[in-house]
Amino acid sequence: MNFTSKLIETAVQEIAKLPGIGTKTAFRLVLHLLKSDLATTQSLSDALVKLRTEIAYCKKCFNIADEELCSICASPRREQKLLCVVENIQDVLAVENTGQFFGVYHVLGGVISPMEGVSPADLHIDALLQRVKEDAIEEIIFALNPTMEGDTTTFYITKKLKEFSVKVSTIARGIPIGSELEYTDEITLGRSILARTSYD
Amino acid sequence: MNFTSKLIETAVQEIAKLPGIGTKTAFRLVLHLLKSDLATTQSLSDALVKLRTEIAYCKKCFNIADEELCSICASPRREQKLLCVVENIQDVLAVENTGQFFGVYHVLGGVISPMEGVSPADLHIDALLQRVKEDAIEEIIFALNPTMEGDTTTFYITKKLKEFSVKVSTIARGIPIGSELEYTDEITLGRSILARTSYD
Repeated sequence: MNFTSKLIETAVQEIAKLPGIGTKTAFRLVLHLLKSDLATTQSLSDALVKLRTEIAYCKKCFNIADEELCSICASPRREQKLLCVVENIQDVLAVENTGQFFGVYHVLGGVISPMEGVSPADLHIDALLQRVKEDAIEEIIFALNPTMEGDTTTFYITKKLKEFSVKVSTIARGIPIGSELEYTDEITLGRSILARTSYD
Repeated sequence: MNFTSKLIETAVQEIAKLPGIGTKTAFRLVLHLLKSDLATTQSLSDALVKLRTEIAYCKKCFNIADEELCSICASPRREQKLLCVVENIQDVLAVENTGQFFGVYHVLGGVISPMEGVSPADLHIDALLQRVKEDAIEEIIFALNPTMEGDTTTFYITKKLKEFSVKVSTIARGIPIGSELEYTDEITLGRSILARTSYD
């Protein structure tokens, strides 16, 4: 596309580098910014640079943090002896948004995957073990994706946790709420029968 | 959504102000920027601010311009006596991308629309008439949208152009190439019969 303006071309190219945004969408956004106040562009631009330069990772749980500890680890209202182990930052938010967890997190930064060359040493596993020891963690909930890599990682870490007296669990797997049995895959359905919960 | 970080929250909010981008997409973009180099964010941010502060409008045709004249008006290879009248900048690009027009443009900045309170005085019509006179324009092609407002605007301007000896035309309307007669609306099909072109 020929934009007849070098300034527009550069802006479109920069925006189109973002994932999921093509040239046409980028141009639409550029036209929007041109029509809006200078302040709109200025505050967008400031927020991005500030985000990228000032963000840090929590020293305790490796979640994203504005200061040394993330807002969850720093909160006096969170149960500090209850840990939820997740793969990444998005999963922290996913669990947070359920409103059902009141402990703190530990972000592994990935899962063990020999195919992608991710070994246990690449993950924050040692930090987790140290934390269990130092902070006298009482319970750990594994909330990793229900994939082979997720299961391998849970298995690897739980083995390492054997020497500590900590209660370990994984989040329940089964039929998603609102779905139909008819369309559920047989592995999920089969496991949900094996892992049936007593109806009180 | 609670992002557990003020920096992320601000960045997400700013991005989500853009049209067609929601909170989830904005967060995905933020995570992408966090994973990329600082240079990625920096050059994106620079391009946006530079675009917004340095862009100008061509003094002749009101297209977007990096300098006093846009790259089309300034080009010695364009036919300066052949004008294409369009509604906005996007339409300049649409016509440019056909590769079928070698004249210059005149951007009206809208169409006459009493419903939306746009009167002829709000558009660059006087500038067009002056240009026709001063630059001795020979031919004008109206490329406005085929709507009532577009047609009204074409009609209004052509009436004003009567005093000049300039050839006036509008872009052809008819069945779009690749479409099927069966699914074409009856107005378009009816007009395409009335405006049939001889087959040589």
